[in-house]
Amino acid sequence: MRKIEDIRRDINAIDHEILKLFLKRMKCAEEVSDYKMANGGQVLVPSRETELLDTMLKDIPDELKLEYSSLLRTTTRVSRKHQYFRMLEAEPERLKLDIQPRITDPKMVYYGGLPASYQDMACSELFPNAERRPMESWEDVFRAVVNGEADAGVVPVENSTAGTVNEIYDLLQQYGLYISHSHVKVIRHCIAGCKGTTLDSVKEVYSHPQALRQCQQYIKKHGYMLLEESNTAVAANKIAQLADPTKAAICSEAAAKLYGLEILETSVNDGDYNQTRFIAVQRTLSAQPGDTRVSLVLTLPHVVGSLYGSLAVFADYGLNMTEIHSRPLPDMPWNYCFYIDFDGNLLDQDTRALIYQLTQECAYVRVLGSYPVSQEEGTK
Amino acid sequence: MRKIEDIRRDINAIDHEILKLFLKRMKCAEEVSDYKMANGGQVLVPSRETELLDTMLKDIPDELKLEYSSLLRTTTRVSRKHQYFRMLEAEPERLKLDIQPRITDPKMVYYGGLPASYQDMACSELFPNAERRPMESWEDVFRAVVNGEADAGVVPVENSTAGTVNEIYDLLQQYGLYISHSHVKVIRHCIAGCKGTTLDSVKEVYSHPQALRQCQQYIKKHGYMLLEESNTAVAANKIAQLADPTKAAICSEAAAKLYGLEILETSVNDGDYNQTRFIAVQRTLSAQPGDTRVSLVLTLPHVVGSLYGSLAVFADYGLNMTEIHSRPLPDMPWNYCFYIDFDGNLLDQDTRALIYQLTQECAYVRVLGSYPVSQEEGTK
Repeated sequence: MRKIEDIRRDINAIDHEILKLFLKRMKCAEEVSDYKMANGGQVLVPSRETELLDTMLKDIPDELKLEYSSLLRTTTRVSRKHQYFRMLEAEPERLKLDIQPRITDPKMVYYGGLPASYQDMACSELFPNAERRPMESWEDVFRAVVNGEADAGVVPVENSTAGTVNEIYDLLQQYGLYISHSHVKVIRHCIAGCKGTTLDSVKEVYSHPQALRQCQQYIKKHGYMLLEESNTAVAANKIAQLADPTKAAICSEAAAKLYGLEILETSVNDGDYNQTRFIAVQRTLSAQPGDTRVSLVLTLPHVVGSLYGSLAVFADYGLNMTEIHSRPLPDMPWNYCFYIDFDGNLLDQDTRALIYQLTQECAYVRVLGSYPVSQEEGTK
Repeated sequence: MRKIEDIRRDINAIDHEILKLFLKRMKCAEEVSDYKMANGGQVLVPSRETELLDTMLKDIPDELKLEYSSLLRTTTRVSRKHQYFRMLEAEPERLKLDIQPRITDPKMVYYGGLPASYQDMACSELFPNAERRPMESWEDVFRAVVNGEADAGVVPVENSTAGTVNEIYDLLQQYGLYISHSHVKVIRHCIAGCKGTTLDSVKEVYSHPQALRQCQQYIKKHGYMLLEESNTAVAANKIAQLADPTKAAICSEAAAKLYGLEILETSVNDGDYNQTRFIAVQRTLSAQPGDTRVSLVLTLPHVVGSLYGSLAVFADYGLNMTEIHSRPLPDMPWNYCFYIDFDGNLLDQDTRALIYQLTQECAYVRVLGSYPVSQEEGTK
């Protein structure tokens, strides 16, 4: 048995040999991309890649066929990347993105819920000069932005304890809007009731289902019954109307004060860090130098490894995915679209080439936005 | 400009050269694994891989650094795969999985909801000989299985139009249960009311929020108000109690009949194909030759590309992921665990080696089950 240092020395020597061949192969890829720019043709020709793999696999022992397949898949994938990048550099118009000016200081912004809801607070943190208007549902917010009644809408997309708000992603697709801002806000729920209410007199708590989930342990400890409302501020308003000391709301302190409730206890959420990420949506796609995040939605061809293949492309460009989640495609059972966020900027060549590659290789791609990411002060 | 055939001939020749070197490198990997079996030591040594990459990148032009990084990452990853596979073949006890006999014909099975709910129907399709008992909540089902009151529990995990039931995944982790079966069922909602109710007399419809979402378009067309209930059968029962022709339930035809309602219209769901996937949960991990699916949950170290890296491992083993979704980790904002289903069987060497590699390289891995996948007749 050889010493590990000796084996590693061999490995390093082999890797240097492979590198030389790899650089030659990338030169060939450049020739291919020049040829395709002159003569047309897709960069990805699945039949050519399958044929190449089949040919190569003939000379490989069974126990290394899968390992080599991964290597060749990566080789051809980064070869395509190199081609897309060069082609887009030479002909930027290959990537068609209708980028319009961003409304950075909107006059009228809609949000879901009632005044003093967390959505209202996020709205005012994002757009302190805007007139803010509450809507009954998130769909109403999206509709108002599409119609032009509002310059922007503010809605929650994810909570650090409850997870993704699926409905918002469905609405983004349905109404064809774009993300212009992202803002993380610390959520601190309190429990509040009408005058004379105490923690012991309470039997039922009213709130939004997510807020109730975020306070599960607290609620269980007290043995309260749960009643779901459409919004935490709606719950606070209802408790004020009912004026019944057996009922309390879980809401923001601002909502408790606005509706004249007494705060029975603050910070009743289970986790110390309960944060919600909000987005602003606008009618057009925009991009600015300070943007640090890009969102897109894509669908895959239904083949083995295709999700992995599409995610690998992000790593090939050195672009870090911060989120991925799937949603079912309407009327196509067990087929999904994937929503992906990554650290990028639509004005950067890497991000643009990545998107160009995805649009060439996925069944469907829509860029949902390029935007800056802000956080409420004190957020970790 | 050369002809594309000539360039491709060069590429094929280069790939054959790379293959020879790759096979030599895999021989070295075998030596490394023999060394580590004899002397101990982890297969993945991140500092060694970083050092190797840094050394290699010195000789590479800027525009190819990312491409080569992907190639080397894949090379080292499949080299580790080759080592894990050999080590586990030589020493199967390296993978510790406490596999117990499966209860294939349970006596007592609990489900959430009421008799004639879809969950009850799924239950009887999976376990026709079992005594079935309804529980108020999914958590009650999980608790009863943990306590030994029930031999198995049946719960829904995913709907083809509404998506994942996040709560079930959280409960799987919280109660430490295992998946023993998976069953897809076609969901056909009807709308039903008390005697004398017509589609025009109805003003409000009661149902589970997911069922309401699945009938969104139908409900919108009729302008009905929505009222959320905990279960479709609970809604049917309530409508029977209320005996008010302005109110109707959205539920299964079986539930409508059981609670003496008149069916106003059948198949009111939006999609033609509305299917729900149910799982059976048991106290212990089991595996049988006919199993075709494996589920697991893992957490990643928080580094760039690590999600992609972990998914790449599935492709390296030729194992097809059928599902992936993330859930927030409690008390760790914006950190996630990933639930992954793939086509595999815990008794197969490929699946076992994959799991061994993941347990060695991820921060946390738990196998959630190995199980057969059944479908209601007529399901596409």
